[in-house]
Amino acid sequence: MSKTDGQISMPVIRRLPKYYRCLCTLEQSGVDKISSRKLAEIMNITASQVRQDLNCFGGFGQQGYGYFVATLRQEIAKLLGIDTIKNTVIYGIGNLGRAVLYHFDFEKFGFQLKGLFDKNPELVGTELAGFIINDDSKLDKFMSENSIDAAILCLPTTSAGAVVEKLYAAGIRNFLNFSHYDIRTNYPDCAVEDVHLSESLMTLAYLMKSKDRNN
Amino acid sequence: MSKTDGQISMPVIRRLPKYYRCLCTLEQSGVDKISSRKLAEIMNITASQVRQDLNCFGGFGQQGYGYFVATLRQEIAKLLGIDTIKNTVIYGIGNLGRAVLYHFDFEKFGFQLKGLFDKNPELVGTELAGFIINDDSKLDKFMSENSIDAAILCLPTTSAGAVVEKLYAAGIRNFLNFSHYDIRTNYPDCAVEDVHLSESLMTLAYLMKSKDRNN
Repeated sequence: MSKTDGQISMPVIRRLPKYYRCLCTLEQSGVDKISSRKLAEIMNITASQVRQDLNCFGGFGQQGYGYFVATLRQEIAKLLGIDTIKNTVIYGIGNLGRAVLYHFDFEKFGFQLKGLFDKNPELVGTELAGFIINDDSKLDKFMSENSIDAAILCLPTTSAGAVVEKLYAAGIRNFLNFSHYDIRTNYPDCAVEDVHLSESLMTLAYLMKSKDRNN
Repeated sequence: MSKTDGQISMPVIRRLPKYYRCLCTLEQSGVDKISSRKLAEIMNITASQVRQDLNCFGGFGQQGYGYFVATLRQEIAKLLGIDTIKNTVIYGIGNLGRAVLYHFDFEKFGFQLKGLFDKNPELVGTELAGFIINDDSKLDKFMSENSIDAAILCLPTTSAGAVVEKLYAAGIRNFLNFSHYDIRTNYPDCAVEDVHLSESLMTLAYLMKSKDRNN
């Protein structure tokens, strides 16, 4: 669907966060080593899929010995790039922006929150989670002074285009995008991850329907 | 990764909402007919992928003639099951629940919002978006009286397990799940769509890293 890292396909890349999350849980539970069979079982995929996936990145296990949980978790963290700091702002501090602000464990994944932006004059200048909400007048200066790497867009589709234009002009090339505005096509040099909640609702509708049909 | 509808694979199912969204936009723009080549271009996939996908469901186009946008959109709506009413509650009315309440266009996809639930005594009994927020004491009666089909869980992972247990006991078998609590494994007869925002952050980290390496 979107960009890949050379040979590695997007479905493999999309499984990496699941491995990471699974390995974090195992590590917290005190598990030292795990077989591809057992890891596959927890992840609800096949053991050969696990071996194939991890081989894409050079392989981290020895045939018959399984994987060291802590080592594999660290290697996947490196692969994902969550072990490096990425200075981040949230643009749009409505309910969605607040939900993202309070529910995301940013720093766990290297995203260091540096500031909040909104256009709403009632919000601008107020404090939230230790940050003063800024408006666009501060945008250019803020981005360069704070070496901002990424923006999380919590905006409706209708206003996202104009905001992306400003952020792009201020040097931002990385976006987590909750709107349906198509950043990828308009700015092909950007890294974009779209979160489309409406697609999740549609998928649930489908799963409900197919479950009912199969029962 | 999870359940499929007989022969149709999960990746195909996951593309259906994207087709639907794309066709809605085309229809709103007054486009009557579209070729698989053009549809593929907009969707950023290959034309043969489009033809293959739509053939999975019986095919809706004629070779060389393309697809009628309105017909195809309606057929995909039927396939997805978004053309039927699904009575729905949101459980958890913190920032995430509010974001979901105000940002999701539920009814567009057949999810009719019927009620809100939370445990927080400060919220219970207050009104939001025309609904009185209920607590668990009303849960069983509410679910059966309102024929609730689905629950949207806007809860932290730690409290999700206990809530799912109650909802399952009250007859709910369909969940949109924002927590990392694994409903699918614990209740295999349920339709579950997980929305894991942390995985989106990790994927963005990866895309940023691989973009920087390729530049």
